[in-house]
Amino acid sequence: MNYFLGVDMGGTNLRFGLVDEKGKIHGSSCVSTEAGTSRKEILKKMEQGIRALLEEERKLKVAVKAVGVGVPGCVDFDRGFIHTLVNIPGWDDVPLANILQEAFHLPVFVDNDVNVMALGELVFGAAQGAKNVICITLGTGVGGGIIVEGKLYRGSSFTAGEIGHSIIHVDGLACNCGGRGCLERYVGNRYLVERALEKYRVDSKRKIPDPLTPEILAAWAQEGEKVALQLWKDMAKDLGMVLASLVNFFNPDLMVIGGGVAQAGKVLFEPLENFVRERSMKVPGACVRIVRAKLGQDAGVIGAAALAMGK
Amino acid sequence: MNYFLGVDMGGTNLRFGLVDEKGKIHGSSCVSTEAGTSRKEILKKMEQGIRALLEEERKLKVAVKAVGVGVPGCVDFDRGFIHTLVNIPGWDDVPLANILQEAFHLPVFVDNDVNVMALGELVFGAAQGAKNVICITLGTGVGGGIIVEGKLYRGSSFTAGEIGHSIIHVDGLACNCGGRGCLERYVGNRYLVERALEKYRVDSKRKIPDPLTPEILAAWAQEGEKVALQLWKDMAKDLGMVLASLVNFFNPDLMVIGGGVAQAGKVLFEPLENFVRERSMKVPGACVRIVRAKLGQDAGVIGAAALAMGK
Repeated sequence: MNYFLGVDMGGTNLRFGLVDEKGKIHGSSCVSTEAGTSRKEILKKMEQGIRALLEEERKLKVAVKAVGVGVPGCVDFDRGFIHTLVNIPGWDDVPLANILQEAFHLPVFVDNDVNVMALGELVFGAAQGAKNVICITLGTGVGGGIIVEGKLYRGSSFTAGEIGHSIIHVDGLACNCGGRGCLERYVGNRYLVERALEKYRVDSKRKIPDPLTPEILAAWAQEGEKVALQLWKDMAKDLGMVLASLVNFFNPDLMVIGGGVAQAGKVLFEPLENFVRERSMKVPGACVRIVRAKLGQDAGVIGAAALAMGK
Repeated sequence: MNYFLGVDMGGTNLRFGLVDEKGKIHGSSCVSTEAGTSRKEILKKMEQGIRALLEEERKLKVAVKAVGVGVPGCVDFDRGFIHTLVNIPGWDDVPLANILQEAFHLPVFVDNDVNVMALGELVFGAAQGAKNVICITLGTGVGGGIIVEGKLYRGSSFTAGEIGHSIIHVDGLACNCGGRGCLERYVGNRYLVERALEKYRVDSKRKIPDPLTPEILAAWAQEGEKVALQLWKDMAKDLGMVLASLVNFFNPDLMVIGGGVAQAGKVLFEPLENFVRERSMKVPGACVRIVRAKLGQDAGVIGAAALAMGK
């Protein structure tokens, strides 16, 4: 069996996995990269992590065929070249694939982390066997990956899938991207909490922990607390507005929703699914299934390995 | 050179064209099909039109290889089977490809009219050589066709491209599709005129012709009339909200805009392009060109011929 090395680079962690061609993880590690860690330092940690798993490889007497890396930013996939990373400064114009290829003499593939997650779900997760898929991650940011006819679709300059920057209020709040009224500006982690704080200030005498998190809000809603339930309904409506529009535009057979905020479960998924069914057109609306992502925290590493497999 | 027969079925006309493999029309005809014409009658006219062009074929001593038909509705492309037509009753569940194949002993391909137009623009029009394209038609309805990696993308149940049913106001006006706040409900021909009438009632003492049309409104705007200019700006904003979102989601290299309302030209395209540039993200926004459709009234017939070519 062939083995592949998956690297998942996040804002605060570097995860590594030695993954076989069936998607099973045979060895893994994780190192933290606090804010402010320099590019040089992160690259060093990345090389150390890869090297450690290559030791593992020798012990297991298997052969690693290639390395895949998912990074949080804008990547030229064909060249394995990072244009810029969203929340990690100092990574403009870095030929990451070349750097790692020279260090390890293995083929290296680099792509955007949300694309990598979508690929993981397609090859080994909730989207196995599906044809046209939109994968959505809900967290600090709201991202998306697109599968067309069973293959990852990257767009004309490798940025496809920026579902978080769909405009839901044309004259809405200013967004980090330079636009206004983007979905992410309303349902991204931080904004979701902001909306909640405002609601509790007005509607409730409940004692609010500091920091308030989406996990706490999900737990309250699951207990039936009204303000929290309404908050998830509002979120489902904002997200559903975009998803229903995309059901009509893209006519997918599947939508996969993952990321930390998706852990809210039923309190989000039930109103979301109802909204999308009600507001999309009959034929495409009947065609699409909405499911939760399957790979969880391993999605990045398994997806990066799938990338290394050339999927 | 190979020849193909293109049939463009509209709500009020049937157009026919004998088209060579370079997209040149060598013979054409058009018959009207007033509202209320039965399916049987329309089928008869369709067969007569095709037969007449096959006579032409014999005179020109060329060989027609296949027939393509564009119809205004929901089609199973693989089977050439019409599920339903939007504004022509009596066409539910019609195996049109089979019917015409039996009559003419030629391969027959049937698809949705907007897909067919997109295909025409891709093979012979404004989208030649483009990779990832969204084609939009602005008229009574607002439709779209999607090109992925140089090929028509139909979606998982052949309904992809329904850009007119992108939600722009989540609690907006009820739309024919059963939804609310859809783009088409604000910028479709009829609604555009309704919005104009309302504006003139409030803002102007101008004498309003009956019926008022988008052509008249475009002419007024081109003369610099303020209410009409603002109307096209509002339309550009509604449409631009959806296009900017799709630039971020789909990262196309080209958007092609056609249909009757697109004839408005600069008074629509200038504010539209400005809006999309301003509101889409930097990288995908810089990547996309927005152009007018090239094939005009012949798009349906030439696109249907391209369909027959197996493009």
